Amino acid sequence: MIKASVIGGTGYAGQELIRILMRHPDVEIVTVGSRSFAGQKLSDIYGNYTGLTDIRCEAADINILAETSDVVFLALPHGIASKLITEDILKKTKIVDLGADFRLKDVSVYEDWYKTEHFNKSLLKEAVYGLCELHRNDIKKARLISNPGCYTTCSILSLAPLIKNNLIDENSIIIDAKSGVTGAGRGTVLDVMYSECNETVKAYKIGEHRHTPEIEQELHLFNGGDFKLLFTPHLVPMNRGILALCYANLKKDISVAALQDLYRDFYKDEYFVRLLAGEKLPETRWVKGTNFCDIGLKVDPRTNRVIVVGAIDNLIKGAAGQAVQNMNILFDLNEKTGIDFIADFPI
Amino acid sequence: MIKASVIGGTGYAGQELIRILMRHPDVEIVTVGSRSFAGQKLSDIYGNYTGLTDIRCEAADINILAETSDVVFLALPHGIASKLITEDILKKTKIVDLGADFRLKDVSVYEDWYKTEHFNKSLLKEAVYGLCELHRNDIKKARLISNPGCYTTCSILSLAPLIKNNLIDENSIIIDAKSGVTGAGRGTVLDVMYSECNETVKAYKIGEHRHTPEIEQELHLFNGGDFKLLFTPHLVPMNRGILALCYANLKKDISVAALQDLYRDFYKDEYFVRLLAGEKLPETRWVKGTNFCDIGLKVDPRTNRVIVVGAIDNLIKGAAGQAVQNMNILFDLNEKTGIDFIADFPI
Amino acid sequence: MIKASVIGGTGYAGQELIRILMRHPDVEIVTVGSRSFAGQKLSDIYGNYTGLTDIRCEAADINILAETSDVVFLALPHGIASKLITEDILKKTKIVDLGADFRLKDVSVYEDWYKTEHFNKSLLKEAVYGLCELHRNDIKKARLISNPGCYTTCSILSLAPLIKNNLIDENSIIIDAKSGVTGAGRGTVLDVMYSECNETVKAYKIGEHRHTPEIEQELHLFNGGDFKLLFTPHLVPMNRGILALCYANLKKDISVAALQDLYRDFYKDEYFVRLLAGEKLPETRWVKGTNFCDIGLKVDPRTNRVIVVGAIDNLIKGAAGQAVQNMNILFDLNEKTGIDFIADFPI
Amino acid sequence: MIKASVIGGTGYAGQELIRILMRHPDVEIVTVGSRSFAGQKLSDIYGNYTGLTDIRCEAADINILAETSDVVFLALPHGIASKLITEDILKKTKIVDLGADFRLKDVSVYEDWYKTEHFNKSLLKEAVYGLCELHRNDIKKARLISNPGCYTTCSILSLAPLIKNNLIDENSIIIDAKSGVTGAGRGTVLDVMYSECNETVKAYKIGEHRHTPEIEQELHLFNGGDFKLLFTPHLVPMNRGILALCYANLKKDISVAALQDLYRDFYKDEYFVRLLAGEKLPETRWVKGTNFCDIGLKVDPRTNRVIVVGAIDNLIKGAAGQAVQNMNILFDLNEKTGIDFIADFPI
Repeated sequence: MIKASVIGGTGYAGQELIRILMRHPDVEIVTVGSRSFAGQKLSDIYGNYTGLTDIRCEAADINILAETSDVVFLALPHGIASKLITEDILKKTKIVDLGADFRLKDVSVYEDWYKTEHFNKSLLKEAVYGLCELHRNDIKKARLISNPGCYTTCSILSLAPLIKNNLIDENSIIIDAKSGVTGAGRGTVLDVMYSECNETVKAYKIGEHRHTPEIEQELHLFNGGDFKLLFTPHLVPMNRGILALCYANLKKDISVAALQDLYRDFYKDEYFVRLLAGEKLPETRWVKGTNFCDIGLKVDPRTNRVIVVGAIDNLIKGAAGQAVQNMNILFDLNEKTGIDFIADFPI
Repeated sequence: MIKASVIGGTGYAGQELIRILMRHPDVEIVTVGSRSFAGQKLSDIYGNYTGLTDIRCEAADINILAETSDVVFLALPHGIASKLITEDILKKTKIVDLGADFRLKDVSVYEDWYKTEHFNKSLLKEAVYGLCELHRNDIKKARLISNPGCYTTCSILSLAPLIKNNLIDENSIIIDAKSGVTGAGRGTVLDVMYSECNETVKAYKIGEHRHTPEIEQELHLFNGGDFKLLFTPHLVPMNRGILALCYANLKKDISVAALQDLYRDFYKDEYFVRLLAGEKLPETRWVKGTNFCDIGLKVDPRTNRVIVVGAIDNLIKGAAGQAVQNMNILFDLNEKTGIDFIADFPI
Repeated sequence: MIKASVIGGTGYAGQELIRILMRHPDVEIVTVGSRSFAGQKLSDIYGNYTGLTDIRCEAADINILAETSDVVFLALPHGIASKLITEDILKKTKIVDLGADFRLKDVSVYEDWYKTEHFNKSLLKEAVYGLCELHRNDIKKARLISNPGCYTTCSILSLAPLIKNNLIDENSIIIDAKSGVTGAGRGTVLDVMYSECNETVKAYKIGEHRHTPEIEQELHLFNGGDFKLLFTPHLVPMNRGILALCYANLKKDISVAALQDLYRDFYKDEYFVRLLAGEKLPETRWVKGTNFCDIGLKVDPRTNRVIVVGAIDNLIKGAAGQAVQNMNILFDLNEKTGIDFIADFPI
Repeated sequence: MIKASVIGGTGYAGQELIRILMRHPDVEIVTVGSRSFAGQKLSDIYGNYTGLTDIRCEAADINILAETSDVVFLALPHGIASKLITEDILKKTKIVDLGADFRLKDVSVYEDWYKTEHFNKSLLKEAVYGLCELHRNDIKKARLISNPGCYTTCSILSLAPLIKNNLIDENSIIIDAKSGVTGAGRGTVLDVMYSECNETVKAYKIGEHRHTPEIEQELHLFNGGDFKLLFTPHLVPMNRGILALCYANLKKDISVAALQDLYRDFYKDEYFVRLLAGEKLPETRWVKGTNFCDIGLKVDPRTNRVIVVGAIDNLIKGAAGQAVQNMNILFDLNEKTGIDFIADFPI
């Protein structure tokens, strides 16, 4: 059994992680760390655990967890994990960090977008970007895995085959993404109160969202390029789900069928990427509660554009599920173990 | 492996059943019956199955399924199952009927409330009412199990210990229940269109809902009584979940703590009934996607009433989950097998 | 033109009040008081006012408003209004208080339920309970009007004719009410965050909600009685609306038609109470955005109970709309002026 | 008083129109036409009218309405209005057609996108495209007004000033629009059932939606151009509202402030277009229930793009409200009369 601990276990992503780990056949949860709820029973914070566990939250010390745990998951606001993790800790345990601290390889890009100094430049080099479908081999050998953001996972998986195959003008890329409200976390902020965000839709941080450079970094890997794209997130009145529409100008004529072949080939060994056939387009309901990324393709012959539509569950493939997928890879388990969910419809 | 088939597999309850059976470690799905979608791939009807199964719906003949299947689940509108099932079929396979045809033991009560003749009086006697917590021993030996309704499961489990212990004036019982929209099924009816039932709440069929006599029948078993209760359902703008508030006048003073002891004792061997401690009250979010029935208790000393609050997921403990629980009992499996879900929060 | 000011104008009820007053043909808004948003433009707090008004919030002094305004509306948490209002102020202006301070006539009942001393016992006697349909004559002459609570307005209007006509056992009354989330106000509280209360339903404060004694007080007026009732509120995932189901045992047989006659007679001069004909039952969607209280009646012959179903918009007839209705009465305007809204469907 | 009739009065747009007309100070409703509900009281179909009107739906004959009405509104599926309207009718009454039949001036474009013959080519020439802000002078003199579609109104108003001022590469235009569910109408279709579209988001008809050529036609007027744009609609789980994000490549550097000046100038006389200041972006909640189109501007210097965000209520500025605005212009009333709504927040 893998001994696993979670620090930051009472936010939405942390909680989802615990739920998954509790039913994972090869995992034993050692410690649930939560400063805000230290001493409280998990089942008193989240009623879904009633009768299922007596575990209590602790103000966990990562140095102790490094001794007791085979893997420690961090689900913390940015700027904290980079201060916590040391070479010494990495000698003792594996780290999967769900936060943003180790995602951007270029320190200046990080400091630009996050408006803060980076606190751990040395380990930044070592950290592996944990988008499983793209970096599986590096993940296997990693000590520190930086779990990707939700918008980024969906966007990168949607666009990678296009760029790899040199089919589009990269500078024409526009990603118009829609997210459910859990993406904003559990902080009691006016904007995500029920009566403020119910029955309305809005765009926010157009061109300024911090997932932008993360998407660019990973897509650059496919063509050595240095293009810039425009990323626009939206808040949609639903709990979960991300739908990303990725627009780009085609460099040459290509049919949807041919595009689908390229995508099918690119993802031929990937269980968690589902390419929709024919004219079908993803909807968040079909991936909700799952680790799947559904992808659909459309060509608009009138404007010679391709539109890739990606859908994920932001808390699973976009956070906790992918973190467990990374753990499965790290510990050489079947990658599907414990995360092979079917969407429970109607949601 | 248990060979299982589903007739009526493309309604909400049938679909939920298939999803559960697909992940059940001891089950192999033989046939998915659906007249409306015969010939179509399940994954073309419900996108959550994309990439997971190639199974196609068939206009299944129950007589053939009786040969090929160890158990056949029926998820059909009332009036159909009773015409389909024969002594011959029951000799060959087990039946779990999710419809209403075999729930009411008294034919005249059935015919009164359903405004139709009963088409299978002989087998009605044999059918076992599949509320697992109350009829486990009979279920074990049954050939034909009549799976309870959603409102009824929640109401009966909430009230049984009170009546068993002779604590209330049974004629004072009022059940005020709230249901999500999936309770109405998948028929394209104006009332359950998004813009018609979103952002509004209504009561319907006050005192006239067909689950009323079903609740009475089962509660009568505990005191040999013949009382009548008032049951009021509501439609609430959410997909799933039932919350039932059961009001009754106490015959004598009793503390909440003492009531909780009686309930704890009554359900001491029941994994799927979770009694909430202290002042906590059930909320549908904590049972959503699970087979649990959460129960909370409240005494109002000002009016000398007890209020029992029950919560279930109408499609799981109220339909497909309980059907699988019945199957588990029938086939002598651990009752939790394949249905030990934790609510995935936020929903 | 009536010069009107609002203190506490940036909560949901206050904001709704301003919106109504801005379109009221006989009103000019003098001051919008808001301590938290003092100095800010109303249109920067609530985007619906963009381009429509340049008014800014002020940390208003009620003594000054008493000089400048013909009427001052207070929309404040309980315990504040009673400290603010003085005899001197009432000599200069009319007060409509949307809070709870002056609703309960019996100081000990207030102190019991609100767990605080009452700070203005002298004016408590003078304050008129502003349920327009029941106290119109007193309202006309009032200086200080205590605007009723939302649940109370709906419950009292639903039950008054039954008690007036001595048709029910008052001690059997149970009110099971469902409210949208705006009823909780605009405070950033975890329970009313989108992902916490979306797709779920719960009961809360069973038998302990502060509207209970308010309902009892008003209903006692109809029979000089001293009965106690049970009131249960619920939180439902929608923005607005209250649906109250009022259960009671009938003292004698009576048909729905006869009951409807009694109700029709009771409310024969009331524009804002709409008695539904035949078997129709209220739904919150049909009163949403309006000052109407819809009432439907049902008799359950099996249990000899009557069920009265009432529906209002909690922010209009349950708060701001009724406050304006009170103002209309006070200033001898047509009672419908400025509040004769038709529900905008789909909501 | 203007005598007005509505044909197709029981769909969502028709119903909204009736609600507005009922409170319009200069309008008297003569006839509500509805074939499906002929003979029924409007208040029996839509409960919001209870107690407010006794009007009954009729299987209205437009030739008779032409005699009795000063204006006839048509809210019908495409292909019907063009068969109904004749020269003779237009001699007797004004027509405002909310359907699509007279929107596209080029018959071949219409026949291409609607896959049907056009049935009234002669009157097509005469029909005025009723986007009030752009065609006011023509509307004044029109006999037949073709009321624009919902997506188109929002998109055209958002983009017109950019094209007029020759600031963008028109072939780079992408419109990514999100709509509430009422946009789909009141037909009982599986896709818009509550449990099918709640808690999910999807794109549909990418590049193939019939509003595409309508947007192009109107934008071409500003530069005599013949560019093509890509329009993508989405279905979002809310009742009402359209949010359109319009992306385009800037031809030259320009600041947001300078853009706002151009927009402010373009719409300087337009009450119903609200340009948001500074960094503010439209949200559908602030225009819900109103005739406003809110517009916000953003420049992304990294990719040299402009993003215009527009928001309307699809049933008001996108249908019934603009229809009444057209009527106000036709009859030389103040354009705001009867449609000067403030969004009722929380929605």
